[in-house]
Order: sequence, then C-alpha cells, then structure tokens
Amino acid sequence: MRTKMEGGWLWLKGLPSRSLANVYEIYRQTTKIATDDPRKLIHSFKVGLTLTLVSFFYYFRPLYNSFGVSAMWAVMTVVVVFEFSVGATLGKGLNRGLATLVAGALGVGANHLASLAGKTSEPILIGLFVFIQATASTFVRFVPTVKARYDYGMLIFILTFSLVSISGIRTDEILNLAQKRLSTILIGASTCVIISICVCPVWAGEDLHNLVGRNVEKLGSFLEDLTAENFRPPSEAAQTENGSSGVSVMSRLNSVVDSKSSEETLANFARWEPGHGRFMYRHPWKQYVKIGNLTRQCARRVEALLNAYLNSKTQAAEEIRGTIQEAFSGMISESGKALKEVASAMETMSRPPSPNPHLANLKIASKNLKSLLKSDFWEGYSNLSQVIRVASVASLLIDLVVCVEKVADGVNELSSMANFKCKDGNNVNFRQVLVEIPSVSHVGNDEVKVEGRLSTEVDRQILNA
Amino acid sequence: MRTKMEGGWLWLKGLPSRSLANVYEIYRQTTKIATDDPRKLIHSFKVGLTLTLVSFFYYFRPLYNSFGVSAMWAVMTVVVVFEFSVGATLGKGLNRGLATLVAGALGVGANHLASLAGKTSEPILIGLFVFIQATASTFVRFVPTVKARYDYGMLIFILTFSLVSISGIRTDEILNLAQKRLSTILIGASTCVIISICVCPVWAGEDLHNLVGRNVEKLGSFLEDLTAENFRPPSEAAQTENGSSGVSVMSRLNSVVDSKSSEETLANFARWEPGHGRFMYRHPWKQYVKIGNLTRQCARRVEALLNAYLNSKTQAAEEIRGTIQEAFSGMISESGKALKEVASAMETMSRPPSPNPHLANLKIASKNLKSLLKSDFWEGYSNLSQVIRVASVASLLIDLVVCVEKVADGVNELSSMANFKCKDGNNVNFRQVLVEIPSVSHVGNDEVKVEGRLSTEVDRQILNA
Repeated sequence: MRTKMEGGWLWLKGLPSRSLANVYEIYRQTTKIATDDPRKLIHSFKVGLTLTLVSFFYYFRPLYNSFGVSAMWAVMTVVVVFEFSVGATLGKGLNRGLATLVAGALGVGANHLASLAGKTSEPILIGLFVFIQATASTFVRFVPTVKARYDYGMLIFILTFSLVSISGIRTDEILNLAQKRLSTILIGASTCVIISICVCPVWAGEDLHNLVGRNVEKLGSFLEDLTAENFRPPSEAAQTENGSSGVSVMSRLNSVVDSKSSEETLANFARWEPGHGRFMYRHPWKQYVKIGNLTRQCARRVEALLNAYLNSKTQAAEEIRGTIQEAFSGMISESGKALKEVASAMETMSRPPSPNPHLANLKIASKNLKSLLKSDFWEGYSNLSQVIRVASVASLLIDLVVCVEKVADGVNELSSMANFKCKDGNNVNFRQVLVEIPSVSHVGNDEVKVEGRLSTEVDRQILNA
Repeated sequence: MRTKMEGGWLWLKGLPSRSLANVYEIYRQTTKIATDDPRKLIHSFKVGLTLTLVSFFYYFRPLYNSFGVSAMWAVMTVVVVFEFSVGATLGKGLNRGLATLVAGALGVGANHLASLAGKTSEPILIGLFVFIQATASTFVRFVPTVKARYDYGMLIFILTFSLVSISGIRTDEILNLAQKRLSTILIGASTCVIISICVCPVWAGEDLHNLVGRNVEKLGSFLEDLTAENFRPPSEAAQTENGSSGVSVMSRLNSVVDSKSSEETLANFARWEPGHGRFMYRHPWKQYVKIGNLTRQCARRVEALLNAYLNSKTQAAEEIRGTIQEAFSGMISESGKALKEVASAMETMSRPPSPNPHLANLKIASKNLKSLLKSDFWEGYSNLSQVIRVASVASLLIDLVVCVEKVADGVNELSSMANFKCKDGNNVNFRQVLVEIPSVSHVGNDEVKVEGRLSTEVDRQILNA
C-alpha cells in the first residue's frame, strides 16, 4: 500500500516535467514542419482568415436576415473544401457546387413526384428514392475514373439529394431552403477558391513539376556521390565513418522509389488548375507521371547495381576491379551528370541540350563496355570467379545506361509537348565527344596495363574551348 | 450550309446509338466491378439501407418532435462516415463522435466567455477564438501521426467549434442545440458501425492479411511459371505465342511492386478494428507492412534477374546456359515453392514448417552455386563473355535466395507474434533433403557432361514416404 502511494506520489511529482516534455515535443515537431515548409503555416492562417470572413454572415444582421441558419453551410463548406493546394481546393469546390446544384434539383423533383401520390404513400416513395439513389451512387463511386476525380462530388450528391428530399416531408418551403443552401455553399466555395488563389497560392502543378525534377536530380547526385566516394555506396561510406548516419543517405534512394502515389495525387489535382506562372492550362501533367515512373525504374536499377557491386566487393575482387574501376566510375558519374543536366533543363523549363554530350558519352561507353564483355580480354586472369562478379556489375551498368536514356527521352518528349523554350546556344557549345573505354592489354598473367580512359577532363576542355 | 445541316442531322441520327453505346459501356464497367468484388455491391446496399433507416427520424412524428431539424445531422453522418471497411467506418465514427463532443464543449465554453465581455465585444472575441482555433488545428493536421489517424477528427473539431461558437451569437438555446446535434451524430455514427459490423462485414485487417499473403503467393507462382515456361519470363513466352496478352502477365509483378500505399492504408484502418474471426484485437498489423516491404524487395530482385537473363539470352549463350540451366530452373522453382509454402502458411494461419524443406534446399543450392562461381570450372570455355553473362544471372539468383529467406523470416516472426497454431505433423513429414548442384565435368573443350541435379523429384518421394 505504502509503495503504491509512493508510486502515485512520484507519478504526480513527475507530471509537470513530463507534460512539459510533451509540450516541448509537440512544439519541436510543429516548428520543424513550419521551417521545412513555411507554406503549411501560411495555409493554416489562410484557413483561419477565410473562416473568419465567412462567419460575418452571422455577425452582421442584414446578412443574417437574408440567409438565416443556412449561413451555417458557408462555414461548413469552407472547413471541408479548403485544401492545401489550389487544384485540390478548386476540384473540391467545383465538385461540391455542381453536385449540390444537380442533387438539389433532383431532390426537389423527387419530392414533387412523391407528393403527387398522396399523403400516405409520400414517405414510402421518398424512402424508396433515397434508397435507390444512395445505393446506385455509392456503387458508382467504386468506378476508378469517378473515384479519381469526382469522388467528393458523388458524396455531396448523395448527401444533398437525401437531405432535400427527406426535408420535404416536414417543410413546405423546400424550394426556398434548397436555394438558400445552394447560394451559401457557392459563397463559401468561391471564398475558398479566391483566398486560395490570391493569398500565397500553392499550385499542385508546380509541386508536381518540382517533385519529379527533384527526384531526377536526387538520383543524379546520388550517382555522382557514388563516384566521389570512390564508387562506394554513400550509405556504406558514411556508416564506416560515423556510425548510423548513412541510413539517411540511402533513404534518398528510397524516397525516389516511394513517391509514386504522391505524384499521381498531385497530377490529379493539377488538372483542375488554371494556367499559372510558367504553366499553361492543359500542361501535359500526365507526362510527369510517366517521367516519374521511369525515374523510379532507374532508381531500382541503381539499387540492383549497388547490391551487385557490394557482392563483388566482399569477394575482394580488388585486383580486376582496379583495371576497369575508372571506366565504371566514369560511366556512373556520366549517368549522374546526364540526369542532373536533364533535371536542370526541367527546372529552368528549357529544352535539354540535343544531342546531350553526357548521353553521347554514355552511349559510346556502354557500347565499348559491351564489346569488352564480348571480347576475350578477360582471359588470362587467374581468378575467374572474381572476373565474373565484376562483369555482372558491368552488365548491370549497361542496363542502367538504357534507363538513363529513357528518362532523358521522357523529358525530351515533355519539352516538346509543353513547348519549353530553347536555351541560348544549347547546340553551339557542343562538340562531338569521343569516349574510350580502357583497353586493357595483358603483359603477363596478372600484370595489367591500362591505356586510355573515359576522357572526361580532356573533353571538358574541348567543350569549354 | 447544306452540309452543316446534313452533319447536324447525321449527328442527331447517331445520337441514340451513341448514347446506347455509352450506357452499355457504363453497364459493362459496373458489372465488372460487381463480379470482381461483390462486396462492393453489398456495401452500396448497406449504405442505402442505413440512410433509409436514419431517415425514419423525419418520417415518424414522435422522433421528429424530439430532434427536429437536428435529425439532418444523422443523415449527414451516415453519408460521410460509412466507409467500405469496418476499420475505416469505426475510425471515422469515433473521430467524428469524440471531436464533436470535445469541440462542442469548448465551443459552448468560448461562447460563455465571450458573452461575459459584453454585447459589443462578443462578436470580436468569438471571431478571434475561431481564427486562432482554425489556424492552430489546421496546422496540427500536418503532423504526420495526426494525419494518419486523426485527420478527420481534426476537421470535425474545426467545423463543430466554429459552428457552435458562431451560432451562439444568434441563439440563446446553444446548449440545447449542441446536445441535440451531438446525440443525432452519435445515433448516425453508431447505426453505421452496427450495420457495417453486422451485415456482411468487410474487415480491413482480413483484407490486409489476404493482400500481403496473395502478393507472396503471386510472386511464388510467377517464379514457378518462369520454370514451367522453360525459364522464359512468362510475358515473353506469352507474347511470342499470342501477341500482346503477355503484358497482363508481367503486370502481376508490377501489382506486387505497387501495393505499398494500399497496404499502409489498410494497416491504419485495421488498427481501429476489434477482434474478428481469426484475428485478435491488437493483431500485429505492422508486421504485415514489414512482410509487404520484403516481398516488394524480392519482386524487384526478380525483375533484375529477368533483365539480366534476357540479356544473357540475346547474347545467345545457349551452350553454357544449357549446362546449368537445370540448376537455375531448380533454384527458381524452389524459390517459388518456398514462397508459396510461406503464403499457404499465412493463408491457413499456421506456423510455417520449420525447418522449411524448400528453404533448406535453397540454402544448400545457393551455397553450391557460390562455390561453383568461386571455382575454376568455367575455364576451358571458348566464349568467355557468354560465361560472364550467365554468371551474372547466377549471382543475381543468389541475391534472390537471400530475399526469399528474409520473407520467410518475416512470416516466421508474424506467426510467433500472432500465435499461429502448429499444423499437425509439420515437423514429422520432414526429412533432411540434400540438394546437389550440377557438377559439370569437362570432357573436351566444348563437350560437357552434367552429373547430378537439383534432385527435387527424388526428394519429394522421400518426403512423401
């Protein structure tokens, strides 16, 4: 008993410090969100502002006299419709407005029809209408195309039809009621849309553009870091140096792989948006989803490549790897540069350089690596299994190059679909760049001489000339 | 002018057949949904039924007299809260009920506080409260843990607080109003939950269990089909035979890779559900998400393996591949069988056999393949580049085996977390199965003799003995 009381006392004594810790934790999390993306803080203020504006319907007697309790619907509309991005707000607002209009009209019609049948059978008929309508509309919500764009509209359709037709049993002012409700909903929705567009707008289309571009850029710099770390996966490099911080580096790759659903959601929202900034109405948003898919495919290839490379490393194939290490590094760094160039073209919305020097490099290097794999240059190595490990890395590298080309093609398509402007002198600086794969000549059995390499430094000088 | 009129006439003439075609298309789509998942049709009827039940508040005078227009909130609640699965409905219902309770109480409190300040400053104070509350709550909705489980509750909190505190300006019956609203919302929500649980319930937890299990099973039979098609990817095999139908086969792999977000959503819903059928309350739903992730990783390895294999095929390394084709097929088919066994253990909720004969086979085969890669048995082949291509497939195969083991481990963990029952005689039928990797002995340079193989047929006889 004593100990229980003591435990309770300790618990009570610890309460202030614990709740202080909780408050601090919440404070820490919210400040992190606010600093990571200040637009979220601004959005919150916008919602507060719009709600306060709409509540003027209650404060001012003349406004309240004309709308009455229906003013409530304006408040509800603001809370439910106001979303983070303009596209989502517009989509919800249009869905809500149109669905209310159509369902209201149908509800009044159904009510009129039921009243013709006489007082006793009226509730039965209305009940039947509501049942059939709710069942059919709920089922239509499962159709994928409806679910993607009109789900909220269908919900409001069911709601409004049911409310209007049922209310008709208890009031004769049904037309007046429906009209008031519709006008307050329209006022609420349009206030949301106006505030959402006019005060620091958040465009889903711009977010999509940035997300897809940033993913390409992330993948590019991941590959570049790989070579900077002497072709070690950055995660491993970081882990060996300072424990567990490498996880966050590897998660860069995972964040690219896992972005599919957010890209699709943004593309759906973006289709509601009018032209804004650098984007026209009917910007090819679907192409972004396509580029996103290609980028993810590319990221998965990088993952496979890393796994194979780590395997070849545990086998300690240092000797053989040394001979083509530079070719590997060169190709990976060129892949990274090609992706980053494509990403920067997306960012500036300019046409990617055509022909792209890095891509041209990669194509030639890939071709050379292919013929190297076909040739018998491997012969003479004592430890063949090591050669095989390294060669499997090489063939995955060739796969990666194909993927990088696909991403570049996707961005090229986008640039012609969306009429990206030509960058000044894109095609002037470019000169044909020739890349050599190391031609390894065997002197003895294990003695190896490497001649030539992926001559990027030299080429860069030519390019800058 | 004439042609325009003629065109118009043709358009009008074509209208009936076109709209008939449209109606037919909608009919086709909906019947497809209904036959694919009849639960969706049943759900629609359940919504219709619940709405009709709740609308009795309007039809019967005694009920209407006690609730009045507030009965509207019961209808609204049903439309908004009733979701496809029990977990989602329960989650939304609890969120809505609790949020209404708390926000209603706070709204009444805020109203009382403002009324103390006098008639003139009352609207200003209430406006300030609403602004602060809406801004803060909207911002809290961005916190990831809140977003995942309490997003709807926060929305209702903002809505109710605003409505209750603003309404207070125009009516003195605010407490009465808030109480009526709360009770009708509770009635609506509990009707939803009861109908959702009692009439053909759809459990999110069961769906999650089936989805994750089915994905493991899909991957397993994909691998088995691979061997049945003589180690050709099923898509390619189908394409060569009948055009483009192979796409749907390859999409089996994609559907596994792309199921992440739906698994996470289901896991979130499942946490709201009480114990049902074979699942207890607090079933380890998170472990399913983990198994799902491992399965996806495995599917990505299969993708990489297929790519490498197709590459090795275009290089026409038939000769070398022939020698270890059987070992490849054996390992892939064992991987498929191991996954299918794990999937069937999940389906029957029994402990997977331990030690798992297929996994034991795989481990030994993988070890043998590893030592084969290390050995110099490849020497003497004339075309070394072909050997390398095949060897890269081999090393990817070893990676795949590691992944399959991880999936099996994940399911093992699940079975001990959730106390799966032991299958009768799981460990009785099992005998140590020894698997030999083909030991290839060179007779001449290109003449090859294969002795021994992945002796599954023989072993199966031993197992069944």
